[in-house]
Amino acid sequence: MKKLISIIGSDDSDKNLSTYALETAEEIGGLIAQKNGILICGGGGGVMEAACKGAKEKNGITVGILPKSKEEVNKYVDIPIISGLGNRRNSIIVYTSDVIIAIAGRWGTLNEISYSMIYNKPLILIKGTGGIVDQICNKELEKINDSKNYYFVNSATEAIEKAIKLIEN
Amino acid sequence: MKKLISIIGSDDSDKNLSTYALETAEEIGGLIAQKNGILICGGGGGVMEAACKGAKEKNGITVGILPKSKEEVNKYVDIPIISGLGNRRNSIIVYTSDVIIAIAGRWGTLNEISYSMIYNKPLILIKGTGGIVDQICNKELEKINDSKNYYFVNSATEAIEKAIKLIEN
Amino acid sequence: MKKLISIIGSDDSDKNLSTYALETAEEIGGLIAQKNGILICGGGGGVMEAACKGAKEKNGITVGILPKSKEEVNKYVDIPIISGLGNRRNSIIVYTSDVIIAIAGRWGTLNEISYSMIYNKPLILIKGTGGIVDQICNKELEKINDSKNYYFVNSATEAIEKAIKLIEN
Amino acid sequence: MKKLISIIGSDDSDKNLSTYALETAEEIGGLIAQKNGILICGGGGGVMEAACKGAKEKNGITVGILPKSKEEVNKYVDIPIISGLGNRRNSIIVYTSDVIIAIAGRWGTLNEISYSMIYNKPLILIKGTGGIVDQICNKELEKINDSKNYYFVNSATEAIEKAIKLIEN
Repeated sequence: MKKLISIIGSDDSDKNLSTYALETAEEIGGLIAQKNGILICGGGGGVMEAACKGAKEKNGITVGILPKSKEEVNKYVDIPIISGLGNRRNSIIVYTSDVIIAIAGRWGTLNEISYSMIYNKPLILIKGTGGIVDQICNKELEKINDSKNYYFVNSATEAIEKAIKLIEN
Repeated sequence: MKKLISIIGSDDSDKNLSTYALETAEEIGGLIAQKNGILICGGGGGVMEAACKGAKEKNGITVGILPKSKEEVNKYVDIPIISGLGNRRNSIIVYTSDVIIAIAGRWGTLNEISYSMIYNKPLILIKGTGGIVDQICNKELEKINDSKNYYFVNSATEAIEKAIKLIEN
Repeated sequence: MKKLISIIGSDDSDKNLSTYALETAEEIGGLIAQKNGILICGGGGGVMEAACKGAKEKNGITVGILPKSKEEVNKYVDIPIISGLGNRRNSIIVYTSDVIIAIAGRWGTLNEISYSMIYNKPLILIKGTGGIVDQICNKELEKINDSKNYYFVNSATEAIEKAIKLIEN
Repeated sequence: MKKLISIIGSDDSDKNLSTYALETAEEIGGLIAQKNGILICGGGGGVMEAACKGAKEKNGITVGILPKSKEEVNKYVDIPIISGLGNRRNSIIVYTSDVIIAIAGRWGTLNEISYSMIYNKPLILIKGTGGIVDQICNKELEKINDSKNYYFVNSATEAIEKAIKLIEN
């Protein structure tokens, strides 16, 4: 079965979302497709849309698990799953994925990160992308508990290498 | 965007599930693939597995929205969405789909049928497949309310023709 | 711990909802309170509101598990649980209750009835209240599967007696 | 209608949970009851159980929104709502409450805190109780976004005063 890799991060309402974060998301999306993985995301704008765009440019398959309706979907999603659960759909994104990769983000992303830890899913955080991800990379959440199942990387390439390694183990 | 068509019906624990119902499910799965649709289902055995098998034989894409874990998935599912919601995932199958096709079934299928009516999603019931579907086809639920959004057909071919017509309208 | 008994049935948008059904709901609500039970319901109008009114007249405690917001609640609910899940909250009403009592109803009630059977929760249907309940009492759903965990009664008094007996066993 | 105030925080598997945090939770539970509020929580051990104990000592009403089954409930819960959603029930605790008060906590509590911010629910964090709450009080999450709807207090008494003020506004 193909591997399911999710990308989580800021949507397009985040004013601090940087071009670097978006480029990184797009690059990762492409790399997931090239590695024959399926991209899972929340189906919206910002980081999600950039990742889906990257995956489609490399002929990947993209799945968007949406809050409420098909109207919310970005144009690079192949398979929109309409949860009807609002932001509570975050849990399904995380629970479905073999590995989670986080870029930038605010409270919604922190919600998904907390689900990753609750379900003990491997989480990869890309340093330098801003938002909550950089706060965590700066060790600010280090003391929450003794979870060891998250990893800091410096680039899209490092992230995909780490993701593949985690899945194969 | 590709059209999402779900098949709902008995899993393999239904002792009354007939070979005819399973063959019909497999045929429908193949027809969905040939029409370039994506098959959505609950990802389990019985009608779900037969439909997925049919779709894969025609190189279709299959999505299984599972109750709790990847262990429950049939081997013809490309994309397992792990809801973690148990049978409450029925609502997502229905809510995600453009059209729902029902074959045989018991209480779980009736649950999905009731969601179809609650969300006003077009529902196609294939006569002669047994279970709750035949009970409804025999007009036993006719008086529930004045919903007009369900349709009786006699075969897999009729079902896919009706489904395409409903989606294109 | 106090016993949790739910009442399910038509809301006030059901044009066929009879005065008899509403009076029965109100009577049952009162009887639940007198038996020191807690009334669980969907928190809305029609059968739900009548049941809550009856419970409050006898100083009972009423819980409404609402679809989306506190604005939907009837004025006799003490504790509104805001699920944010829309009609998917039906599963929580059923899953929380020790016994379920059904009066009249349409597709939403059938959805809750199907959850009762899926979770093997005891279900009491009051004959003569109309809607889906009378269809089931008329044996129209008899053949779905071999569940034996539902019971037909003729009045509010019979319903509460049966409910108490089921809980005590 | 009575006011719904939730207490979130570590369960009894948190080895760093302090006596001070538990005493504070118990005190807050009692104060909620004295103010005629209804205590909402996750129904489990640790901070949740201490808060429920405090509320019952002052004859309050306690509601526990549980992950999966009645077996998980602490003995001071009056009304166990069985969500069947696992940790996804966190969203319902937050969404139901007029105000949320946080004590200590790990990833699950951070999950609830993120839901508080996503739904723009007022959140009160009690300094000195440890865990994720103290990390946030130490301003480590300050930069996530410009939410202003959370408040730092120093004691149970300050927390209840702030909660009442927020509800009355």
